[in-house]
Amino acid sequence: MEQNHKNVIVGQSGGPTSVINSSLMGVYKTAKDRGAHTVYGMLHGIQGLLERKVVDLSEQIPDDLALELLKRTPSAFIGSCRYRLPEVELNHPIYDQIFDYLNELEVGYFFYIGGNDSMDTIKKLYDYGQLIGSEIIFMGVPKTIDNDLAVTDHTPGYGSAAKFIGTMTKEVICDALVYDMPIVTIIEIMGRNAGWLTAAAKLAQGEDCNGPDLIYLPEVEFDYEAFEQNVKSLMEKKKAIVIAVSEGIRIKDGRYVCELASSGPEFVDSFGHRSLTGTARFLADQLAMNLCCKTRAIEFSTLQRCASHMVSRVDITEAFQVGGAAVKAAFEGASGQMVILKRVSDQPYICITDTYDVHEIANVEKKVPRHWINDEGNDVEEALINYIKPLIQAELTPTMVDGLPRHLSRTKSLPNQGQKVAANL
Amino acid sequence: MEQNHKNVIVGQSGGPTSVINSSLMGVYKTAKDRGAHTVYGMLHGIQGLLERKVVDLSEQIPDDLALELLKRTPSAFIGSCRYRLPEVELNHPIYDQIFDYLNELEVGYFFYIGGNDSMDTIKKLYDYGQLIGSEIIFMGVPKTIDNDLAVTDHTPGYGSAAKFIGTMTKEVICDALVYDMPIVTIIEIMGRNAGWLTAAAKLAQGEDCNGPDLIYLPEVEFDYEAFEQNVKSLMEKKKAIVIAVSEGIRIKDGRYVCELASSGPEFVDSFGHRSLTGTARFLADQLAMNLCCKTRAIEFSTLQRCASHMVSRVDITEAFQVGGAAVKAAFEGASGQMVILKRVSDQPYICITDTYDVHEIANVEKKVPRHWINDEGNDVEEALINYIKPLIQAELTPTMVDGLPRHLSRTKSLPNQGQKVAANL
Repeated sequence: MEQNHKNVIVGQSGGPTSVINSSLMGVYKTAKDRGAHTVYGMLHGIQGLLERKVVDLSEQIPDDLALELLKRTPSAFIGSCRYRLPEVELNHPIYDQIFDYLNELEVGYFFYIGGNDSMDTIKKLYDYGQLIGSEIIFMGVPKTIDNDLAVTDHTPGYGSAAKFIGTMTKEVICDALVYDMPIVTIIEIMGRNAGWLTAAAKLAQGEDCNGPDLIYLPEVEFDYEAFEQNVKSLMEKKKAIVIAVSEGIRIKDGRYVCELASSGPEFVDSFGHRSLTGTARFLADQLAMNLCCKTRAIEFSTLQRCASHMVSRVDITEAFQVGGAAVKAAFEGASGQMVILKRVSDQPYICITDTYDVHEIANVEKKVPRHWINDEGNDVEEALINYIKPLIQAELTPTMVDGLPRHLSRTKSLPNQGQKVAANL
Repeated sequence: MEQNHKNVIVGQSGGPTSVINSSLMGVYKTAKDRGAHTVYGMLHGIQGLLERKVVDLSEQIPDDLALELLKRTPSAFIGSCRYRLPEVELNHPIYDQIFDYLNELEVGYFFYIGGNDSMDTIKKLYDYGQLIGSEIIFMGVPKTIDNDLAVTDHTPGYGSAAKFIGTMTKEVICDALVYDMPIVTIIEIMGRNAGWLTAAAKLAQGEDCNGPDLIYLPEVEFDYEAFEQNVKSLMEKKKAIVIAVSEGIRIKDGRYVCELASSGPEFVDSFGHRSLTGTARFLADQLAMNLCCKTRAIEFSTLQRCASHMVSRVDITEAFQVGGAAVKAAFEGASGQMVILKRVSDQPYICITDTYDVHEIANVEKKVPRHWINDEGNDVEEALINYIKPLIQAELTPTMVDGLPRHLSRTKSLPNQGQKVAANL
């Protein structure tokens, strides 16, 4: 049997993005074009695989219209998970279960679209495969709005999130200028430990907009006193002040700013990540009390990762490319690798794909370099904006039906059909 | 001097919308086309007028490109205010100041674009004009995302906000389905006393989306126990639950739900409106505690009134029309009126303009009729969706420059120039 006559399986993992489905398409179409027999999709990633929940993607994406809609559908089409595999050791029942099932499905190629936590899954599966002498190939496909994956120039998903953040920041600044009275608007942007997303608020600055007045990334320790002093000085010069803060900014003792507020019950996921929220609200309340001014807190929240009505065409194209490149490399024998993007030049923007050892990428967080943040730690440097700009270019118009964007939804009966398919094999 | 050789002045008032600038254009272009000499813009509405801050709009909108950009610019281009005029009485210094200044500017026509609070301004100025025998004509131009103006079928600004809310709700629902675990997502939508905006979340429902599971409008008293029971029953049937709540829902004793949470300092505007926020967060925290499930709160917040990258073409067209209709009616002698929209038919959607006595509209809030909400008070009826649907149709593509929507910004030096112009007269 020729290698690419084996079956392919693909999963989506971690937080969704607006373009993760484009990577799914990249894997699916390229595998099909190159002769893959069946392309399975895991429902909810490795977690679904363990429950034998897989679907035949050709049933889910029956035609070109479905493909076009899928491109414009946010969130992970076949579902995602936050599931951490145990440490690799021989004869571990979870790994045996996975490999047995993959063999049962006659899978030769395993693709996992995700961020640094998800690459941990690829790393462990590859390592276990090596231990037991499996021929199954494991490839990682990069994805995360956080842009915090190591080695790759950037990650698909980031450009669209940055474009949405830049757009909304511009619109919020227009809104903030509307009254002739002092008001401090604090925008809270995602990013637990890396400030890439928050930095994108600076994109708002241009001929028609002054951009945010202050920007605070988690890479720099947050000093409330200095912050209040900065706001005070600005208030002497202008009425409407707009500030962008990362949800993950921390004070000197390491506590998150949002932890300083009294908060409701907390939820910690299986990777130990707490949900951080309330940073902007806490700072807005503090300023209102201390400076006696009107303040408001705006969380861009989940919208940052699901606003598929405003995606970057560069991003969605690259998301497809990394999926396709993963299949090509895998069909040529690469394994235990993740596809990376390598920027060849900024003007014109040229970016190529390559592959890299997933062991060097899994669980590593790439932060914003300190020299891309100003000395005071309250703004970003032009070099950072020049880095982001090419990633937000051009659009993909949503397919509007009856006034709203149309998405592709999974055929409802399929989770069960998937189980049936699996059971029949 | 012929009547329409007199000057025109126009102001924007109250909370901004994505299309309020289209009404400004409607007034400006129609007045110019019909021979108005100068069209002044008040900077920050009546409050700016009192400070003699006006601009010549032809200097701010020099050409057709500026007009096209203005159409796509959110928030009030010439600034807004929340300023309440005192009760009308003869020889009141504030009214004398306003009328003296209007006479100095040789203004014959006064247009004010706003909601029910702003119509209070038109009503009072008209009444005072009658008292002193002024010939100045006062016309109201409807605007509010809240859709709570009396008499008119709907208000410009609502359709675009509804379209954005419908779009984001669809995208958030996609996002909510991503993990195979129980999660309750609560979306907080604007609307202090009227549920029109929150009802728009229901637009998400269609072939590709189930829509929100529960919807709570401020028109119906909120019963937490029943709410929790509803969520509990749903959790037995499905994992991802999405709920839309109005920021203004209240419990039996009249308190807003958001008041039940401990909150930061409050800001009350000159109309006595408190800023309501934290409803979704409070409910999400309660559910997490009582039902031991993962919850998240998403506030669509200010984005609802400034997301000009996603406007309804029907809305933006009507926003222009009401501005134009106000000028036509005023030039024909109408005064003390507001332009209203009258729906002639739903399919095809036909809507015409008319005028109506502003005394019947000022300070009145139009709520969602009880029969458009289901008996349980946790969903909306199809008739309400049929009412909203025509208002969100078609789009106006943003003018994208370097990856982001381009807006029109006021010429920076103009507030002073405006004062100079005024001083020279």
